Amino acid sequence: MADRKTALVISAHAADFVWRCGGAIALHADKGYDVTVVCLSFGERGESAKLWKQPGMTLEAVKSARRAEAEKAAKALGVHDLVCMDLGDYPLDLGREEKNRLVEVIRKVQPAFMLSHSKYDPYNTDHMYTTQVALECRMIAQAWGHNPGEKVLGAPQLYLFEPHQTEQMGWKPDTFLDITSVWDKKRAAIECMEGQEHLWEYYTRVAINRANHFKRNSGGQSGGRDCKYAEGFESIFPRTVDEL
Amino acid sequence: MADRKTALVISAHAADFVWRCGGAIALHADKGYDVTVVCLSFGERGESAKLWKQPGMTLEAVKSARRAEAEKAAKALGVHDLVCMDLGDYPLDLGREEKNRLVEVIRKVQPAFMLSHSKYDPYNTDHMYTTQVALECRMIAQAWGHNPGEKVLGAPQLYLFEPHQTEQMGWKPDTFLDITSVWDKKRAAIECMEGQEHLWEYYTRVAINRANHFKRNSGGQSGGRDCKYAEGFESIFPRTVDEL
Amino acid sequence: MADRKTALVISAHAADFVWRCGGAIALHADKGYDVTVVCLSFGERGESAKLWKQPGMTLEAVKSARRAEAEKAAKALGVHDLVCMDLGDYPLDLGREEKNRLVEVIRKVQPAFMLSHSKYDPYNTDHMYTTQVALECRMIAQAWGHNPGEKVLGAPQLYLFEPHQTEQMGWKPDTFLDITSVWDKKRAAIECMEGQEHLWEYYTRVAINRANHFKRNSGGQSGGRDCKYAEGFESIFPRTVDEL
Amino acid sequence: MADRKTALVISAHAADFVWRCGGAIALHADKGYDVTVVCLSFGERGESAKLWKQPGMTLEAVKSARRAEAEKAAKALGVHDLVCMDLGDYPLDLGREEKNRLVEVIRKVQPAFMLSHSKYDPYNTDHMYTTQVALECRMIAQAWGHNPGEKVLGAPQLYLFEPHQTEQMGWKPDTFLDITSVWDKKRAAIECMEGQEHLWEYYTRVAINRANHFKRNSGGQSGGRDCKYAEGFESIFPRTVDEL
Amino acid sequence: MADRKTALVISAHAADFVWRCGGAIALHADKGYDVTVVCLSFGERGESAKLWKQPGMTLEAVKSARRAEAEKAAKALGVHDLVCMDLGDYPLDLGREEKNRLVEVIRKVQPAFMLSHSKYDPYNTDHMYTTQVALECRMIAQAWGHNPGEKVLGAPQLYLFEPHQTEQMGWKPDTFLDITSVWDKKRAAIECMEGQEHLWEYYTRVAINRANHFKRNSGGQSGGRDCKYAEGFESIFPRTVDEL
Amino acid sequence: MADRKTALVISAHAADFVWRCGGAIALHADKGYDVTVVCLSFGERGESAKLWKQPGMTLEAVKSARRAEAEKAAKALGVHDLVCMDLGDYPLDLGREEKNRLVEVIRKVQPAFMLSHSKYDPYNTDHMYTTQVALECRMIAQAWGHNPGEKVLGAPQLYLFEPHQTEQMGWKPDTFLDITSVWDKKRAAIECMEGQEHLWEYYTRVAINRANHFKRNSGGQSGGRDCKYAEGFESIFPRTVDEL
Repeated sequence: MADRKTALVISAHAADFVWRCGGAIALHADKGYDVTVVCLSFGERGESAKLWKQPGMTLEAVKSARRAEAEKAAKALGVHDLVCMDLGDYPLDLGREEKNRLVEVIRKVQPAFMLSHSKYDPYNTDHMYTTQVALECRMIAQAWGHNPGEKVLGAPQLYLFEPHQTEQMGWKPDTFLDITSVWDKKRAAIECMEGQEHLWEYYTRVAINRANHFKRNSGGQSGGRDCKYAEGFESIFPRTVDEL
Repeated sequence: MADRKTALVISAHAADFVWRCGGAIALHADKGYDVTVVCLSFGERGESAKLWKQPGMTLEAVKSARRAEAEKAAKALGVHDLVCMDLGDYPLDLGREEKNRLVEVIRKVQPAFMLSHSKYDPYNTDHMYTTQVALECRMIAQAWGHNPGEKVLGAPQLYLFEPHQTEQMGWKPDTFLDITSVWDKKRAAIECMEGQEHLWEYYTRVAINRANHFKRNSGGQSGGRDCKYAEGFESIFPRTVDEL
Repeated sequence: MADRKTALVISAHAADFVWRCGGAIALHADKGYDVTVVCLSFGERGESAKLWKQPGMTLEAVKSARRAEAEKAAKALGVHDLVCMDLGDYPLDLGREEKNRLVEVIRKVQPAFMLSHSKYDPYNTDHMYTTQVALECRMIAQAWGHNPGEKVLGAPQLYLFEPHQTEQMGWKPDTFLDITSVWDKKRAAIECMEGQEHLWEYYTRVAINRANHFKRNSGGQSGGRDCKYAEGFESIFPRTVDEL
Repeated sequence: MADRKTALVISAHAADFVWRCGGAIALHADKGYDVTVVCLSFGERGESAKLWKQPGMTLEAVKSARRAEAEKAAKALGVHDLVCMDLGDYPLDLGREEKNRLVEVIRKVQPAFMLSHSKYDPYNTDHMYTTQVALECRMIAQAWGHNPGEKVLGAPQLYLFEPHQTEQMGWKPDTFLDITSVWDKKRAAIECMEGQEHLWEYYTRVAINRANHFKRNSGGQSGGRDCKYAEGFESIFPRTVDEL
Repeated sequence: MADRKTALVISAHAADFVWRCGGAIALHADKGYDVTVVCLSFGERGESAKLWKQPGMTLEAVKSARRAEAEKAAKALGVHDLVCMDLGDYPLDLGREEKNRLVEVIRKVQPAFMLSHSKYDPYNTDHMYTTQVALECRMIAQAWGHNPGEKVLGAPQLYLFEPHQTEQMGWKPDTFLDITSVWDKKRAAIECMEGQEHLWEYYTRVAINRANHFKRNSGGQSGGRDCKYAEGFESIFPRTVDEL
Repeated sequence: MADRKTALVISAHAADFVWRCGGAIALHADKGYDVTVVCLSFGERGESAKLWKQPGMTLEAVKSARRAEAEKAAKALGVHDLVCMDLGDYPLDLGREEKNRLVEVIRKVQPAFMLSHSKYDPYNTDHMYTTQVALECRMIAQAWGHNPGEKVLGAPQLYLFEPHQTEQMGWKPDTFLDITSVWDKKRAAIECMEGQEHLWEYYTRVAINRANHFKRNSGGQSGGRDCKYAEGFESIFPRTVDEL
């Protein structure tokens, strides 16, 4: 833990981390980070329509299929550790013990930065609930009196990754990340999501358009750096810098 | 212009650049930047109460005194070029020609980043007007058809520096800058503002408190970096990065 | 269910649906909709002051009186089905089982649109809690894995009806509905609310003033359609249309 | 004017109407609307970089080229009347007389609805200035005392079309329009914009992704209507309806 | 000026001060304030539809009729001084000289508080322009260097009075004023507005409903003070108090 | 209860009331108010880092030390009643019974005004949870049907006291209170907080800077009242007044 840089993704359902920050994961893995991904649920009830349409489907079979997909995608992205907490979805609802387990993961990882959902999402209340839980557990992990003797958490940034229909969520990116060099890995991870094939091209287009924003904001027509694929993020906390 | 990095401050009145971003100016000057400061006016009518209370005071005498202060402060901070446009204050009102002169400065400087006032200020409409003008002239400077043949502007960030009574202005910092190493220079520049001595300690306290925010956001009680003086800024445009 | 169009109102307390969307209910009933109204509670503790001021009053007697009023008002408006869930008020607090019962109602009704409270209400936290529950249960009802085999919910609009003191709630209507043709029914329903007689004229004035807004927005002085009574609504989700 | 329905687009620069609402124009033209497009300027100085990079270019030559493109695109979309006001760009600045000319157009067209830019745009102050002018001139056109005897304007909706980098502009769509049936026309119009070829694919992707939003909001996985290309709009004024 | 308390209303058109703050004017006049009302225009072009529908109407005749109404209403309310600046409406547009005339009025009055329109109004850009001018001229009046030797302005509150369709304007009241004791005067002033008779009952209903808000906020069912008519206001600046 | 005025502070952790509204407490105590302070927890786990760094520390010892500090500070400020509910922190989580206990306190105190935390706080979710609970319990205390026969609550203002890093919390003060006369008491109370000595000077600077805001808003350079120490507050509910 001491020598490697680390990052932590908290994802409501099994597939969220792929569409929304798969590039950030792969890029930082390439840079030597150990990236841990927590899936609070498999999205087994609310985000597995294609599976449920098959005759004789069971909850366990759905969860098993979603877990397999998530593991395959995590491998494609170079995820260091995939933690499937299996807490149930639609709705997600964590008690004190479940929150403590999440705090334990946060403390073990000691992430340099965290990633989670947008603050508001009227389409999917699991998403905004996850962000609320991420903030609460980040706070508990910082408390010296929570399991005294453990190493407490610093003050990692919480980046909110891109939701579907950004404007409806009141999400506004302040950071664009060039993921061109790892695009093949993100695309490969996306293609692990067999149950949601209708979104493969969707998020490819998102990545290309965000690259346009990257270019526009990095110099425009006069010297903007080229970029083919990018991801956008909104920061909860301000940066502290030595030079603008 | 080619070899040196540059920055540009657009200040409504003569003293604004000292209180609000004197540290950023001195720090970047130390790092080898050429920092240009534009004062649209001297604040001669609206921000020179102490002078006007002297018997027999005239507009020219006020402007002259304010200019001398600004020049002294600029020197203390290591400003590369102080441009006093002398356009009149309370209210500021720029016509097409005045805007073109400002565009000319922007293009000549080709700043890596710009600094100006908050977006809203019901106490001082000159301040929000200046920000509006800064955005407009930044846009004109980017136009290939404005004085064709000149080098057009890229896409520098516009940082909004800290206003007085931040919450009333709807200003929210997303970036804190450690100015500890140049604090003596900022304090020296502040003390050039003889007409506003009541603000010397005020902005010293602001700098110390912002340092607390710097520490809190750079790691908190678990490994936060020490910092004695800081300045806060709000970015208009998102960042484009290679690593979070 | 197949042949009739349907709508669903989710109301925190027994009387809310009358003041806030009684016109929408009566109008759509007239147009052939089956309108179901869910009252999560009777407002027995927090919105029955007049009854509690009577000597010897009991909780059951208050609930009984409130239920009678709600049933009478529902009849006046042409409500198809009034569902009194009797979950207790001040505060409302639904567990997993109660939420599942609400999901069951939503799925049974399969509403073309839903109606509930404003997103924020510092005077009455039951109101904003109800909206949060409405969004959560709408989402669960859409999940293929929730009670697999049942017909899942589509994507009905959630309209937020008019709160008391609109501006304090941050509520902004984007839709005005002409209820002139059913005004007599709404007024009759309002007069069923014997415990809150001080509000009869209040909400009559609201309806007349909203009619002014209807006229102003449907053509103004040049051809605006006449309208004597109207109701306003804020939409959570965007519309999808074929013609503007 | 009496028998045909009409619509009016107010565009800051010559190409804006193509990218941002070309589908709405073509679709409504197909439905029998007479659609008038006003270009306040040609975007000759600020949005013609490619032309200015050619040796020996002049302002008149740029304007002429941009006008030709706009006319060709307007023809492809079935625009009824293209009004090029030639008021200059970067910055746009209308005096009283220019505003009166725009009011004259509005009154002559008597649009059923209007289209213009987002309310905020720190990248391009011409855009937000145009929206401000559109609101002001809409108001003047409604005044009985402005050129008394002329037919005054009713209360047409003002739709804000999609800006570049929506979140930075605080733009949030509340209406999606299916433009699948006229996509070929929009694409043809887009390809008239030879100077901005880098945006052809960009706005094709935008249209495909907005179609996904159309589907998601029109029923989702349970019965959502298919749609291949769409455009999004934000309404300034609330709707007045007879049925939800 | 020394002995009497004073207040200042800045109204875009002749009738605005009656509907929106007639009660505040009459109440403070009763309390011994000298209340000055500035009408920047008569609303002769945009708010006099009824007059313009009469045959042979001229601009001068409209202005004369509107002035007579305003004078009659001002008398009914006990206005100390009615200043009709006659600057033209739809649109209002003040140059430097007109602003200086307004500054002169502000300095002469030395108001304890000021009243003007809401910050945003997409229906009526004259209204939001007036608020912007009120803030700018308040600032100039505070400048020691503007007409040195004159008594400068202190820091009076600027209250924003109630617009039509409050939510569309983003207006949120933080202060309710009991105007029961002067209601007869406000109603009499309202009835001077013969050209807008359709609004008499409208604003009577608004006053009754705001009284409900007064009661609700001053103690509710448990000890709320009775109130029959009230007006609401939004403050721009914070209060400075000795006791909460 | 009848003869003395009362106020109520609801504080998430033991020390919050000192830093954030110690001046308001001492000032109102001086004016004859009985001020009750409720500490939901001691901040024993999350805000006692200094204690936990001592070897052999236990939860009970931390709570005991924090309680002693809180009692000492309360005495310095003249608090009438300090209620330590000891509900546990990081995270705070109240069940129905705990909320009822808080309602009981509110009803017993019958406060003229209440004080609590900001509405949003991503650094400390206990703080925003406390405000949510304060609103919910205020509502229950107003319900005639909650413990019928008890005296119900009126409609006291809820003031939000100043959070750390105000802008990150979206907190905007609308009321400044001059606490100069009781500053010595607040400073003495602050010095009781031995575990957080690093904040003593921080909040002294805050108080001095808020005094500058007090002066600026109470007259500025022209007649502003002098003030050495102040506190700022944001009101949730509008005021109801007889005179502006």
